[in-house]
Parts: sequence; C-alpha cells; structure tokens
Amino acid sequence: MPVYKAPLRDIKFVLHELLDIDTHYKSIPGADELTPDLIDAMIGETAKFIENVIAPLNHPGDEEGCHWSPEGVKTPKGFKEAYAQYCEQGILSMAHHEEHGGQGLPPSMGIVASELMGAANTSFSMYPGLSSGAMAAIEAHGSDEQKQAYLPKMNSGEWSGTMCLTESHCGTDLGLLRTKATPQDDGTFKVDGEKIFISAGDHDLTDNIIHLVLARLPDAPAGTKGISLFIVPKVLINEDGSLGERNGVVCSSIEHKMGINGSATCVLNFEDATGYLIGQPNKGLRAMFTMMNVARLGTGMQGMAMGELSRQGALEYAKDRLQMRALTGPKFPDKPADPIIVHPDVRRMLLTQKAFSEGARALAHHCGMLADITMRKAGTDEAEAAESEMELLTPIAKAFMSDSGSESANLGMQVFGGHGYVREHGMEQIVRDARIMQIYEGANGIQALDLLGRKVLATGGARLKAFTDQIDAFCEAQKGDDMKEYVDALRLHTEEWNGLVQKILERAMTNPDEAGAASYDFLSYSGYVVYAFFFARAAAISQKALADGKDDAAFYRSKLATARFYFRRLLPRTRGLVQTMLSGADDLMSLDAEDFGY
Amino acid sequence: MPVYKAPLRDIKFVLHELLDIDTHYKSIPGADELTPDLIDAMIGETAKFIENVIAPLNHPGDEEGCHWSPEGVKTPKGFKEAYAQYCEQGILSMAHHEEHGGQGLPPSMGIVASELMGAANTSFSMYPGLSSGAMAAIEAHGSDEQKQAYLPKMNSGEWSGTMCLTESHCGTDLGLLRTKATPQDDGTFKVDGEKIFISAGDHDLTDNIIHLVLARLPDAPAGTKGISLFIVPKVLINEDGSLGERNGVVCSSIEHKMGINGSATCVLNFEDATGYLIGQPNKGLRAMFTMMNVARLGTGMQGMAMGELSRQGALEYAKDRLQMRALTGPKFPDKPADPIIVHPDVRRMLLTQKAFSEGARALAHHCGMLADITMRKAGTDEAEAAESEMELLTPIAKAFMSDSGSESANLGMQVFGGHGYVREHGMEQIVRDARIMQIYEGANGIQALDLLGRKVLATGGARLKAFTDQIDAFCEAQKGDDMKEYVDALRLHTEEWNGLVQKILERAMTNPDEAGAASYDFLSYSGYVVYAFFFARAAAISQKALADGKDDAAFYRSKLATARFYFRRLLPRTRGLVQTMLSGADDLMSLDAEDFGY
Repeated sequence: MPVYKAPLRDIKFVLHELLDIDTHYKSIPGADELTPDLIDAMIGETAKFIENVIAPLNHPGDEEGCHWSPEGVKTPKGFKEAYAQYCEQGILSMAHHEEHGGQGLPPSMGIVASELMGAANTSFSMYPGLSSGAMAAIEAHGSDEQKQAYLPKMNSGEWSGTMCLTESHCGTDLGLLRTKATPQDDGTFKVDGEKIFISAGDHDLTDNIIHLVLARLPDAPAGTKGISLFIVPKVLINEDGSLGERNGVVCSSIEHKMGINGSATCVLNFEDATGYLIGQPNKGLRAMFTMMNVARLGTGMQGMAMGELSRQGALEYAKDRLQMRALTGPKFPDKPADPIIVHPDVRRMLLTQKAFSEGARALAHHCGMLADITMRKAGTDEAEAAESEMELLTPIAKAFMSDSGSESANLGMQVFGGHGYVREHGMEQIVRDARIMQIYEGANGIQALDLLGRKVLATGGARLKAFTDQIDAFCEAQKGDDMKEYVDALRLHTEEWNGLVQKILERAMTNPDEAGAASYDFLSYSGYVVYAFFFARAAAISQKALADGKDDAAFYRSKLATARFYFRRLLPRTRGLVQTMLSGADDLMSLDAEDFGY
Repeated sequence: MPVYKAPLRDIKFVLHELLDIDTHYKSIPGADELTPDLIDAMIGETAKFIENVIAPLNHPGDEEGCHWSPEGVKTPKGFKEAYAQYCEQGILSMAHHEEHGGQGLPPSMGIVASELMGAANTSFSMYPGLSSGAMAAIEAHGSDEQKQAYLPKMNSGEWSGTMCLTESHCGTDLGLLRTKATPQDDGTFKVDGEKIFISAGDHDLTDNIIHLVLARLPDAPAGTKGISLFIVPKVLINEDGSLGERNGVVCSSIEHKMGINGSATCVLNFEDATGYLIGQPNKGLRAMFTMMNVARLGTGMQGMAMGELSRQGALEYAKDRLQMRALTGPKFPDKPADPIIVHPDVRRMLLTQKAFSEGARALAHHCGMLADITMRKAGTDEAEAAESEMELLTPIAKAFMSDSGSESANLGMQVFGGHGYVREHGMEQIVRDARIMQIYEGANGIQALDLLGRKVLATGGARLKAFTDQIDAFCEAQKGDDMKEYVDALRLHTEEWNGLVQKILERAMTNPDEAGAASYDFLSYSGYVVYAFFFARAAAISQKALADGKDDAAFYRSKLATARFYFRRLLPRTRGLVQTMLSGADDLMSLDAEDFGY
C-alpha cells in the first residue's frame, strides 16, 4: 500500500528554481507578501495535514464507496470530519476572494494543493474541487447579492457546490441539452430536467449544496447559444440566511463506477426546483467556459498526481522485493535474491514514472502562474499573452498529463507484478481512479480537437509559434556543451512542430477531416515537446547547481539523470507520431461504417 | 453492454485463407479428417454455445464475484451448470488424448475455442483453462497409471485441475520456492507449504480438484534445479476410483482483485497433504516449462480476446451514439446529431482495435499450427523448426497480444466516454479483466527478457533470422505495385530488426544490462513487425480476392483498409522504439537506487 509523502523537494525546485515563482509573485496583486519562506511554510503545513488526515481515507474510501438511499448519499467513513477540517485548515478558501471569506491567494497556490489532494485522495478531492468550481462561477458571474449569499458559507465549508452540465443524451455536445428554466413572477425560475454524472451532486458533508445548473429558457435559441446558468440550492435559503425548505432537487441514484468510488456521481432530478439566473440569459455556456481552463488543468493535475502516488508505491516495492539476480551478477549476495530495482527494465518503468511526474508538475505550475497573470492582471498586454498561452497549454495539460498519469499508474502496478492486481496493495485502485481523468472534463479526444483546431490552426499557427519562440530563445541562451544534447533535440522539434502545423493547415483547407485525423497524435506530440522544454530548463539549472557546488547535489544529479532519460527514452516517441499524424484522413475515413464489423 | 458475437468471418479467413490450415491438417496425424466444412461446423457450434451459455454469465459473474467460506469457494451463479455443459459439449476435451476420453483434435483447434472463451467470459475460462493445463502436464509426464486415474474424469468435467507454482516470496523467481515434499514409506510424499495466486484453486464446479504442485524434496539442490512436481488431489481417491477422505489441502482465503472476479484466486495451504511424484525428481520446473508455450499463448489470446470484446461494444456504441456533427458537415441532418463514428478520431480508436484483434488472431492461430507440428510430428526436422519458431514467437504472443489487448480495451472504453466508466455498461470490466494478462503467466517484462536474451541473443540472432527469411521470401514473391507499400515497409523492418540484434549483441557482450535495457522496446518492436507480416499477407490475399471478383467483397475491402491503416498508423510506432532501445543501459543504471526518490 503506497503511503503518500508530498514530494516537497521537487515542488520547491519547480516553484523557486525552475519557474522563479518568487519574482513572479512580486508582480501579482495580492501575492507580493508571499516570500519563499512563507510559501514553503504554507505548503509544508498543507502537506502535513493532507498526508495525515486525507491520505489515510483513500483506500478505505474506495472499499466502502458511497451509498445511496432515499434520504440521500452517504460518503465513506471519515469524509465528513475530514471535509470540515479541510475547510478549517483554509485549503478550500486559499485562492478565493477575500471579501467573501477567502484568503485571496493567487490561483497558483491552489494548484499546489490540488496536486497533493489528487495524489492523497482523488475521490475526496472531488468534493472541495467541485465546490471551488461553483464558487469560481459565482465569483466571476454572480451579482453582489449572490456572492454575499453563497460564498462565505461555501468558503467555510458549511455549504458546498456542484456543476450540473451533462444529460444522458449529451456530454460533449451540450447544445443538445433539454433541462428547462421557466421564469416566475417573482424573478426566480422553475428548473425541470435530469442531469447525470454530477460529481458531489449529493452527500452528507455539508448542510446545503449549491448547484450550478445549465438550462434553457423558454424562448432560447437552439444549440449552444440558448443555454443559461442557474443557481439551484438543494435547500432553499430564508431571507435571514438560515436554511428553509428542501428545494425540488432529488438525487435519484448514484453510478457504480470503475473507480473514484469515494466520490458520489449522481443522477439529479430537478422538478419544479427554484433557481436563480446567474450572469446573462443565453450566455451560460460561455460563463462555464471561463472556468474551464482551471478545471481542465485541475483534471490533468489529478492525472499526474495518480501517477505520482503510483510512483511512490512502486519505488518502495522495487527496493524491498527480492527476486532474481542482477544481470551483471549478484548485488546483494547475502540476500536470497536482489531487490528488483537492480533490473534495467524495472528502472525503465520507475524512471518513466518519475519523468512523467516531474514533467507534468512543471507544466502544471507554469499554467498556474499563467492563471495568476490572466486573472490578476486582466486588461494588460501581459495578461493577454498569458491567456493566449494558457489557451494553448490547457488541452495539453488536461489530456497529456492524464494520459501520462494513466501510463504511470499502470507501470507502477506492473512493478508489483501479481501483487499489483490485488486490491489490498492499493496499486490497482490508482489505475482505476486515474482512468477517469482521460474522460471527464472533456474527453482527451475532444482536447485534441480543441488544441489542433481551435487553438492552433484557427490562429494559423501563430499561437504555437509564440510558444516555440520561447523555446528557441531558451536554446539560444544555452552555450555550454553539456546542454547540446537538449538544445539540439529541442531545436529539431520546434522547427518540426511548426512545420507540421503548416502541413495540416494546408490539407485541412480542402478537407476538415484532415485536422480530426491528425489531432490526437498532434496532441501527444505537443505533450512530449512541452515536457521536454521543462526538462531542458531543469537540466540547465541542475548543471549550474552542481557546478556551483550547491547543497543537495544528489537531488540535482537525480534531476539531470531524469532529464537525460526523458530525452533519450520518452521524447523519441515523437518519431512515430510525426509519421502517423501525417498519414492522412483517408486511412480513417475510407471504410464504410457498416464495414467496421464482420 | 457488449453482446459478444464470435467473429466467425475473420476466424475463417485466418484459418482457411491466410494460414491454409486445411492443407496443414492433411499432414498432421489425427487431423487428416478435418475438412473445411467440418472445421467450420465445429467452430460454429462451439461459438453458438459460448455466445448463448457462457457469455451471459460474464457481467453478472464480475458483479457477484467469488465467495470464500471455511467450507470452500462459491463461484458466481450459473458457473457450475455452465461448466458441466461446457465439458459435455466436448470443448474442454477437444485437444486432449483420445485414449483417456479426449477427442484427440490438434492443439490448433483448442486455440480457436480459447479466443471465443476469452472474449465471452475470461473469468469462467480460467476453470477449464487451468484444468486443461494440469491435464497436459499429466499427459506429458504422468505414468500410465496416473493418466488412467485422472484424465478421464478431468475430460468429462467431474474433476478439474490446477497448477500450483507461486509462493508469496517468489513469482518470477521460482528458485526460491520453499514448499516441501517428504517421501513416505509407501512411495507417496507429504507436501507442506503455502501457495498463492492459485487460479481455480478451490471452487464448487467439480467433485474433486487435482493440484499439480511444485515442491522440494529433502535432498534437493538449491535453486531451480531442486524442484519436483507432485499430484495432490483435494480429495483422496480410493483404490476403486471412488472419492475418499479430504486431503490436507485447504483454501485459506481468496484474493480481492482488480478484475477477473469470477475466477477464484486462492491461497492454498498444504499440510501433511498426500502427493504423488509426477515425472523425474528435481525436474519439475522443466516439466512445467514444456507446457509453458501453450499456456503463454493462451494468455496472449485472452488479452486479444478482451480487445475484441471491447471492439464489438465500442463499434455498436459509435454507430448509435449521436453527438456533434461531422467536421465536413452533417451526415444525418434529420437526426439531432451525427453518430460518433463519423469523427476521424473515433475511427482511429475503432480501427486500432480492429487491427489489434486481427493481427493478434493471425499470430495466435499461426502459433497454434506450430504447436500442432511440434507435438504431432515430434522428432522430425519440421517439428524442430516449428519448435524453434514457437520459442521465438511465444513471448511476443504472450506480451504483445496482451499489451495491445489492454490498449484496445482502453480505447473501447474511451469511445464510450463517461458511460464507459460506469460498471453497468460492461466496458470498464474489460479493462480490468484485460489488465491481468500483462502480468500473470510471466509478466511482460519477463517475456521481453526471455525473447531478447534466451530466444534471440542466445542464438546469435539465428532464430530471428530464420523468421525474417520467411518475411523476405514473402516480399520476394510479391510483384504487383499494389503490394509495394507493404513490401517496402517489411523489407525495411526485417533488415533493421536483424541489425538491432547485432548491435545489442555487441554491447551486451561487455555489459549484460544492455540486453535488459533494450528488452521491452525490442519486444514491442518485434510485435509490431510480426503483426505487419500477417497484415501484408492478408492484404495480398484480399487484393487477389477482389481482383478475382470473389464473393463478400466488403470483407476483403475492409481487410485491406485495416491492413493499410495498420501500416500507416500503428507500424510507425517502431520509429520511436528503434531509437529508445538503442539509447543504452547507462540512462537506466547510472542513478543510485536511493536517488530515485526525493
């Protein structure tokens, strides 16, 4: 059973050394008091709480699962108490507005907590995660009255929130949604419809649940342009702020799933439920999309966090488990066999896990810093550039971090052999839990289309070029021989990457299916190059640290070894992708749908 | 929920057209009466039974699982009746010796049944699968008396069998095993020890269970050369063949696993259990190894079968599920949205599944035919060559078919989106069930070492060369322009493949870790090329069938499209592998074990 230890050393490396978050915070309104020591102290305290209180509930929560009854959903033992402590600890409120009970820290600090939570207990993390998403929606689009009515009690953890989008016939294609909102004389609305896959849709953690619901007004245009957003509390709120009657929202069942069993995935039936419009009529989907970037980054983070937890479990096991001798002769002749970490192929798995964790962590925190700039410096040129980069990186972060997280989770299980397949060892749970990250919050195939279509081709490749310019500038600045291996590989890839875009662009002009046919491989290709950029930077810093005789040389040597491993063993996967993404739409589209079977 | 339909059309294509099993059978002793019509009739009947009786128990079996009590293990509802029917149907006895109640059909016919069973209900298939393995061991190594005592009742399904190898401290490294066998005055042995991960180790399907147990004699040398094989019946057998007292074998618990929940995975405690030596003392592991090839092929087959079941489910869903419009404009303007099979990326997933199923099926049946020759023509040059090829292909079949089967299972689930993650739709069960195939019967990393070390490098590359000579001969025979794409790619790969072996061989001379460091990528590379060889042959046959105006043109067009897809979209993955496998041991071995963590 992996015992989660927050990887503080690497998080600090990423924040302070790789991304220089300390300089960054000096320019972020509200963050200028965040000194390195304060940041480390906060992370340390958060980590301790999460390791000691949240992580131990992970495996029991999977075994017990959530239970439905007509009275509502019961979460696993210990979740309720942990939720209260979590909120009291101020982790939920960290990055929320100060005027309504939040701490006003920048989004990037929330990203740190989300890695730790995702690894310690992904199921549990869904409850504060969804609440945080609902709070962000209210912060961004609510009236002052709405903010005052809901946010303080959501920050404190007395109430929680959800996002109600999906219906049984529409997930990706929200334009098809049917839930109705009928205006009432008093300015409220009656909401009627059925929503499915609502995470944290019902539970026993809080006294009230504030649902944010997408629905259609009677006169709304068809499709995505006729969707509005409503606040629908589970329990209605009296004028004095106290809780009143139950609203017309019923959880009629929960899903039995492959994983994240501690997270209640609910069918919610809205019948004559009282709702309050939030934001503009028919602009509901757009309102949702403003929060999508952070939500998608959070999902990628969950994926990477699963990989990290698996890595920790696999590493301990590989050092303990004795089986066979090293190919080069016994390393521990006094033991009956060598620990399996002596075997090159076991190391290949462990290093793949390590590289995926570290690459993803760097990307995630970089995106967190872009979110800081986007949100805290809105209206500036810097914010515009940051937002553009975030638009590019978000589908990569969501999909590639979850794909590589799942791969890592599977490798960790493989290291355990047959013992990995047995539930009590906790490794297979990680594989099951990680699997949803590739699906929800926009399936990875949708992310790929978003990346290639909307983010790259739609800008004629300009948005990608702005990013590769940063890589090229980095390469330009590297003069030492020690960096040559990295610089050469990066240069090859940036040129190739932009070239691919031009080729696909040309083909897609005459046949839009060409973009769809290239999209997934393009996304994977992009993911490998983005991680490579961060590893090259990490390598440069580590080389310098070692040359300067900095403390903790073992850490820098390990980082360098991981960067080298990444460039030699993982980045070359682009060699296949560059071929397959250019193989054309014809080999996908030529077969009649009827001829796919036998 | 996927409803399994045996893919008879493709199985018949592979057997009759691709592999020409009809000519093959004319030369196999005992198989010369198998006409094409008879083969098809047998497969059709087997398929009908499996579709109607075995497949419906798959999902309920997963939900119910196995239950342990001190009285023994209870299998899911319906398994007991189905086991009796299965044996009555003659599927278990198909490839077993006629003189003891089998039907004497060649091993290849058993391989056909094992695909169908693996897809219809992998958990259920473990019970007859293990029994069949135990029977094969008795057939190969038992005395006449032992054969007569056990085989007829195992063929009839009154009794079943197991293979007891693993102990908690040794899976891969059987040299460490501790179970003891103490000789008694009456020529029997007392067996004492604990075995884990014993599939079908206890259950309620049969009146008796014949355990084949690896154990050490008191004077046995240490390591793998001191292991003997024993028959240990759960219930002792009286002289008249009737059942006597319970033997000293107790199932003390079963594992709770990620999947194959209908299959009981048992801890067996042997205490003063009466055992009978089978085969020579201290030659037990070698005896086991003679059956390993068929068992490993069976595991690969289970992996491919899982992918096939997932493919069937995903294809139906992709044709039904309406979501978004085609990128090239609405294809079904009268419907609210297009079926998702219009999207290139969905087709990429479905075609990957299709290609993996078909490539694996061809490889598996080819191996089945090699097994026919090896077993039925023992002592001939032809058998020696077949055995050598089987040695080469077995680790590829086991590992690559299970790796590609798991990939396929995951793709099928991805096609379902969020619905794939919900248990009731049956797609996530396939992912969970498929995952074990990469682990048991020798984890895939072990297969990779076996392939590269023992099968390829140990013969200086000669065994591989004998196989690539077949590919080259095929290429030589292809004159038409239509085959150029396939022939060019195959030629490139056969030359490269042999070249890789020489490079690795050279390095491994000075550092054995170089072989370990290259092994997994070498195995994957080999898998892609082997499938490619079968697809090229299938393409040649399909081109000819279409040119000749043969019936069922749609099938041949589909086969051609799949072959083209495979060569353009999957085979290029070798481009990354060829780089990574040559990146050297240093990037895996240079880091101290202590520096893998933070």
